[in-house]
This record gives sequence, structure tokens and C-alpha cells, in this order.
Amino acid sequence: MKNQKKSQEGLTVKKDKNFSRWYNEILNKAEIIDLRYNIKGFIVIRPWGAMIIENIYKIYEKALQEEGHKPSFFPIVIPEKNFKKESSHVKGFSPEVFWLQKVKGEDKLALRPTSETAFYQMYSLWIRSHRDLPLKLYQRANVFRCETKATRPLIRGREFYWIEAHDAFSTNNEADKQVQQDITITERIVHNRFGIPFLPMKRPEWDKFPGAVYTIAGDCMLPDNKLLQIFTTHNLGNNFSKPFKIKFKDKDGKEKYVWQTCYGPGISRILASIISIHGDDNGLIIPFCISPIQVIIIPIFNSKNQDRIISESEKIATKIRSFGINVEIDISEKRPGEKYYEYELRGVPFRLEIGEKEIKSKKLTLFIRDTKKKQVIHIDQLSELKKLGEQFDKRLKTKADNFMRGKIVNCKTKEQIKKAIKEGKIARVNFCSIKKSGARCAEYIEKEINAEVRGILGNKQEKPIDRCIICNKKATQVVYIGKSY
Amino acid sequence: MKNQKKSQEGLTVKKDKNFSRWYNEILNKAEIIDLRYNIKGFIVIRPWGAMIIENIYKIYEKALQEEGHKPSFFPIVIPEKNFKKESSHVKGFSPEVFWLQKVKGEDKLALRPTSETAFYQMYSLWIRSHRDLPLKLYQRANVFRCETKATRPLIRGREFYWIEAHDAFSTNNEADKQVQQDITITERIVHNRFGIPFLPMKRPEWDKFPGAVYTIAGDCMLPDNKLLQIFTTHNLGNNFSKPFKIKFKDKDGKEKYVWQTCYGPGISRILASIISIHGDDNGLIIPFCISPIQVIIIPIFNSKNQDRIISESEKIATKIRSFGINVEIDISEKRPGEKYYEYELRGVPFRLEIGEKEIKSKKLTLFIRDTKKKQVIHIDQLSELKKLGEQFDKRLKTKADNFMRGKIVNCKTKEQIKKAIKEGKIARVNFCSIKKSGARCAEYIEKEINAEVRGILGNKQEKPIDRCIICNKKATQVVYIGKSY
Repeated sequence: MKNQKKSQEGLTVKKDKNFSRWYNEILNKAEIIDLRYNIKGFIVIRPWGAMIIENIYKIYEKALQEEGHKPSFFPIVIPEKNFKKESSHVKGFSPEVFWLQKVKGEDKLALRPTSETAFYQMYSLWIRSHRDLPLKLYQRANVFRCETKATRPLIRGREFYWIEAHDAFSTNNEADKQVQQDITITERIVHNRFGIPFLPMKRPEWDKFPGAVYTIAGDCMLPDNKLLQIFTTHNLGNNFSKPFKIKFKDKDGKEKYVWQTCYGPGISRILASIISIHGDDNGLIIPFCISPIQVIIIPIFNSKNQDRIISESEKIATKIRSFGINVEIDISEKRPGEKYYEYELRGVPFRLEIGEKEIKSKKLTLFIRDTKKKQVIHIDQLSELKKLGEQFDKRLKTKADNFMRGKIVNCKTKEQIKKAIKEGKIARVNFCSIKKSGARCAEYIEKEINAEVRGILGNKQEKPIDRCIICNKKATQVVYIGKSY
Repeated sequence: MKNQKKSQEGLTVKKDKNFSRWYNEILNKAEIIDLRYNIKGFIVIRPWGAMIIENIYKIYEKALQEEGHKPSFFPIVIPEKNFKKESSHVKGFSPEVFWLQKVKGEDKLALRPTSETAFYQMYSLWIRSHRDLPLKLYQRANVFRCETKATRPLIRGREFYWIEAHDAFSTNNEADKQVQQDITITERIVHNRFGIPFLPMKRPEWDKFPGAVYTIAGDCMLPDNKLLQIFTTHNLGNNFSKPFKIKFKDKDGKEKYVWQTCYGPGISRILASIISIHGDDNGLIIPFCISPIQVIIIPIFNSKNQDRIISESEKIATKIRSFGINVEIDISEKRPGEKYYEYELRGVPFRLEIGEKEIKSKKLTLFIRDTKKKQVIHIDQLSELKKLGEQFDKRLKTKADNFMRGKIVNCKTKEQIKKAIKEGKIARVNFCSIKKSGARCAEYIEKEINAEVRGILGNKQEKPIDRCIICNKKATQVVYIGKSY
């Protein structure tokens, strides 16, 4: 990488000492973002961050297209009258909407905080018959929320990047299935490929998306033991199709309202979780499958053998590139040690050191970012880097899974919940209900234990036993309680 | 393609009879966009349009990265005080800025109409030394201009899609070279690959970008003989680096201001030109290199052989896909004729018809969208589709080049200019100067001939002879005059 700013001195904070400071420092020093843009909650995403985000988008969009979604671009502004069509939607979002100054001849215009009310007025024009269904569109987009609380880069911002998929079906059953498929796709990408485990939580009634019948959201846990919501999927039922008049003529000749879902993986937050969960005290560790540079070659040369070593390195790079691997050579004037340090900070999975000795023996030194171990790789076996890359990602996943697995604790008393939360765990608890009737018990937990009922498992049923720990009524569900962002 | 809305009846307008109506009709019927979003100048880009745009972006971003640019994401809002730093910039853009309603604690915020003043405040933080240069960043982005004039889909909108590249150098010479490289990259992509010829015009002083030292813009000609600006590249000199204090310590130890350029290919407009220039009375003709479907297979079956024909078609599709070609099979219930019609309307380059006879003989019928000719292709020669695709794109380019070539007419008198413009041509004329001193002659042309001085060639010098046709002073330049959007 040419023209890359040097990264000053190393990380000064240990991740397990002060995660929050470590996080901010690594974002800055690995040049993921710059916080110094002069508006609260709006950040600049620098090339290293932008390239990772692009790679996340690529994987996501490919997967969405493979399961029948098509891309689209909707306007960034939404007329106020669209918002108002679904009453809980407008109530939920109005407080954090950025409005435009009056534009002559137009309704009051909002910068989209989410795009249901942009998509669905068009769906009512496009959908006529059961043959038009399912309709599954998505857009990659930035959205805007005028947060008044403290913002946190990539975690809570006034502008963030996501994908929103909006699907319409002829039956509620298909909508339910789509919600499950949304969980599966997230599992396949975010967990299996990026190594980020999450709990798919069906949110309590009081915490669902404004306008949804129900909401399932993915909570992953950051190293400070706080849960971060990285995606949501909602069954919207007919809640939007009725006010937006999205009707179709079914096979039986009857006119019916469509059944809708929407899915929003938060790309900014997924990046935040990758940085937070995989990184260490030397810097980032980027999964091989999304690292903008997968292998960095550092040629070790002196003034006498410089040209030859560089040209041999280029041959090796060409070979590696032929296996579909992103490889670069750093031929800048910096010392090798400086370069090692820099790519470790940036989280590049593999480093190849190539000098006189290596070229002669055809045995290259491979440094592996996560284990920090070196191994020898023969020049004729470079195709193995692909497999090593898969193993690299698998190790990250296993490590994160192990961290997460230990976090869930069955609790039978309030005291046990308190203790679990204090120890940074997630309490698994028999609970009266995540329907409205359980709101008071949840409030109690929030006030007394300073933690949140995040919901019940969204992709399988768990049977509660006994009674609700809080109100002592019959338990109908098993909820998960934790601290959250 | 499943779930695709049928396209009702065919095009009702001939392209050479009424281009403007043809254009609107084709955008609608080929499902590129939908104009019915309820805010003036904001359009919905439907899947077929979005997929073409994605392919254009992919080619463009790859090319920009190959020549040293890196991606980034900058905030969508810009504080008013940034705008004000470069006086002609604020004057030029203020009338068409969308402003946000006051946000507590913040300066007045604009939706970016272009992002110089967002990028450059950060450049002043990032650039310290000659080693940080050149700095070449880009972003793919939507930008916003509150047009009060009539809008036209993909041509003049209040929201449009582009790429903006912002480069900083240590010398003006490098900046000049970058501007030429920007022309070359556009030539390589838009002309050589998409088949859209354009004139790179160095704009007159009175028509340059607000804040630029000089502007070179690409004008292509639509079928209504009006010129459409599809990209601009600007040498900004020190005009922004001084107010934004973007300084670096040079090799000689002295502190200097950087020299800057910016480049903006208009992705929406490039799509508009592709649609307009290549399309015909049967619909779109999409260049092979960016068509979301490059080959559509239409299986011809009856109830008896349906399964077998479809399974054979799938085998053929898999084979074609293995050559890196985007291929789909339409197995919907529509009649083959309906399907032919639909993919012709959408501009898919190749159609393969596969029925009983074809499978037995291993000879498939290939329909070619632009020539409307059919040819036989043997099942063992399907790899040739790649080459046929290149030839397809070359034919589009040649046809467009021929159209454009005939358009430029040397004119020696005002009457000749009038005649040329009347006939839909571009007048090539000896002219006093595109510096301020020539403004009155340009005004005359605008008033009397109802045409515009678009500039002089931006990538080579042409020697004028004789005198300025308008004022009779010594001619110093050869200008091109035409009507424009």
C-alpha cells in the first residue's frame, strides 16, 4: 500500500483494561475512521475501513441476491405524509428524524431514518396480482437518526450504513418463514464467515420495531460484556399494507393485503463487532474473507540486492494473486520492523517475509496475525494460503464462540441475576411474558438490576419451568437478560 | 428472472420521431426507474436499473483503485462554515443547496451538493509531509441539488449518483497530469467499454466549476442532438488548499500548499446516455460488459418434454456460467414470444432458444439484440459467447462513433453556425477566447443562435486560423458550439 499514513506510536491501552479507550484508539490508529469531522455523530470512514465495509457489502449483497432479492435505490427523502400513514411508526421515529428546511411545493421532508414508508408507497403501485409476489427488494444505504444521546463511532451514530430488505408475500406463513431465513442468512454470514456469534432475540412487545407485529434482533456481546444489536428482522403483518393499500388479487380471485417483512443488517455495527471481538493488544484482526489485504509481502533487501528481491517478490505476488487472494507488496522505505508493526495493527491475516535466504531455499516465512506464530511455507505450496485463510477465520469464530458460550448463565433467583449481570454475563431466566403483561417485571429488572430483558430465542422454542422469578406468576417464556448499548 | 413484472404493451413511440417521449417510455417499460415517487426530482431506481448501475460502479471503482485511488465514505452533511471557506464555491452552490432544519448545537447543515468542503477539512488534518502525497481518495455517493428548473430522470434530478475523486499533489504539474488521466480513464471506460463517445471540453472561464482554476468536462450527444455533460474534472490549484490550510513540508524543508484536482463521473447520466444512444424502437440495448443478464435462455417446451428441456437448459446455463458469463433461464409460464419481447425490451445482448430440435442437433439458435439477427451456435462452442460479447460492445461503439463523427462541422460564418445548430450539429469555430474577454461573443451566440460555447478540446491543442467569427478580433482558440441539456 502506497501513500498510507504512518500510524504514529503503538496502542497505549490494553483491551481488557479499558475496552472503550482501546476501541477508540484502535479505530484511530488503524485508520478505520476519523472522529474529527465537525458534526456530532457524523464520522469519516477512511480507506482501510471503507475497503472492509465494501467487502462486507459484497458478501451480503451476493447472498441476498442468491436467495431472490434484487437491488434498488430509493430516494433519501421521505414526505411527512408517508410517515404518518402507520401511526406507531411515526410515533417511534419522529423524535429522531432530521427534517429538511421547507422546499417550495413539497410536503415536509425527512432524511430517511429507515425506508418502509418510501418503499411501500411504490409497492402499492407495483403489486397487483399473486403473480407479482413475492416481491423482495433491498438497498444498501446510509440512514440518519438525530441521536441526542452520546454517540459512539460505528455503534451509535447519526449516520450509519446498512442494508434494508423489504419483502412482500401473499401469506403470513411465508412472512414468518422469511424472518427465519433472515436469521439464517445472518448466521451464515456474520457468524460462520465473520466469526461473530449472536443471540437471535425475539424482542419483548415494548421493544419491538414501531409498526412490526414482532421483531427478532441479533445481539452479540462486545468485550465489555454489553450486548450490541447488529441486525433486526420484522414481521410487519398487514400493518403497513393496509394504510399503504398494498393489495393483490389472489388465485381465488379475491383481493387481499400483502404480508410484509423487513430485514436490516447494520453494516457499521457488524464492522464494530468484528473490530471489538477479534482485535487484540497489537491491533485489529480482520477475518481473511473480508480483509482488503489478505497477504502482505515484506521484502527484506539491502541496496545491493533490492531490485532482485523486489522482482522475486513480485513473481511470488503474481502467483498468490492467481489463487484469487488479495496480496500486496510493501516496497516503501520504512524498515521491515515498522512494516510488520503496521500491518499487524491493521489486522492483515498473513505476512510473508521474503529475503535472500528465502528465495534461495524457496522456503518463505509466514507470520500469522491471530496466533502470532511463524511457519515456513514452500514456494510451491502457496496455494495453501487459501486453506490457511479458512482456518484463520475458523479460529476467530471458535474463539468468539467460546467467549460467548461461557456468558449465558441459568438464574433462578433475583440475586443470581444480579450476580450474573455484575459478572458481565447474560442471565437466562424463567419469565412471565414478553407480551405487555410482562412489562412491569421487565421494568423491575431495569430499575433494580440495571439490566434489560432482551427477549426470547427467536429461532427455537424453549420451555420454561416453574414461575416467573420476578412476579411469581406462571412462567410462559425463557428470557435473556443483559446489559446493552 | 422470477417475480418480474410484465411490461404491459410495447413501446408506442419511435425514437427518431420523439426522442423525449421515447426516453420516458423506455425508462418506464424496461423498468429502469419509476417516476411516481411523490417528490419532484427524486426517483426510484428499480432492480433492472440498479443492477446496471452496480455494474457501472464496479468497473469504475476497479479502474480508480488500479490507478491508486482508495475508497472512503464522507458524511452526507456539510456545515455551512465549510462551504463559506471558498468564496466562489459557496456562491456557485448556495442557490441549489438543501438545508437541514436547525439541529441543536450544530452549525447550519447542508445536504452535500458535492463534497470538496467535506473532504478538504480532513485533508488538512491528514497531510503533513510530501510523503503523504499524492493523496487520492474517492467515494461513490448520491448528491443533492435543489433544482428549480424542470427535472428529467437520470439527466437532471435533485438526487443523483456519481463518484467523486479528490486528489492532492505536491506540484501543479502532477495536478495537470491527473486531469488528463481523468479524461483517459473516462475514455477507457465510458467510450471504449460502454460505447459512448464524448468531447472532452475545457470549459470557458464563465462556465467552470465554482472554485476551479479550470474545468474539463465530457459532452456526449443524445439522439435529440443536445449535448449532455457526463463527467467533469477540475484543476483546483491552491484555491481550496489555502482557505482549508492543507499544507505539507516539501523535500526542501519548506511548507507549501497542496495542489488539488477533483473528478466526478456522473453515474446516473452515464446510464442515461447508454440508454439514449444505444436503444432502439424495440427497447434498450445494454452493452454486454454491464448487462445484468448477458445471455437469457428461453426453453421451448410442451407439457410432455418440459422437465427434460428445462434440465438440458440448466446444463447449458451451467456451462455458460463457467465462462464467467451472467446467464439466466426463464422458465415462467409465459409464451416464448412474450419472453422474447420482454428481454429485447430490457436490452439483454443474447438470447438462446433451446427446444427439442436444438438439443438433438446440439445446435442452438442465438438471437443477437443489436443486429436482430439469428445465428447458430454449437453447444461445444459456447465459450465463444465471450468473444461475441466483445464484438457486440464494439458494434455499439462503432455505431455511436459514426453518429458522433458526422456531427462536427467546421463553420466560418455566423450563418454557417446557425445552419449547423439548426441541423443538430456541433459547430467548430475559430474564436477570440474562452477567457473572460470572450464572454460577450459567447453571449451573442447564446442570444442570436440559441446555442452554447461548450469550450475547447481539453486533451489536445488545436490551432485557430483567421479571426473570431463573432468579434473579428484575432482568434486564439477553436471552440465547439452546440445545444445542451
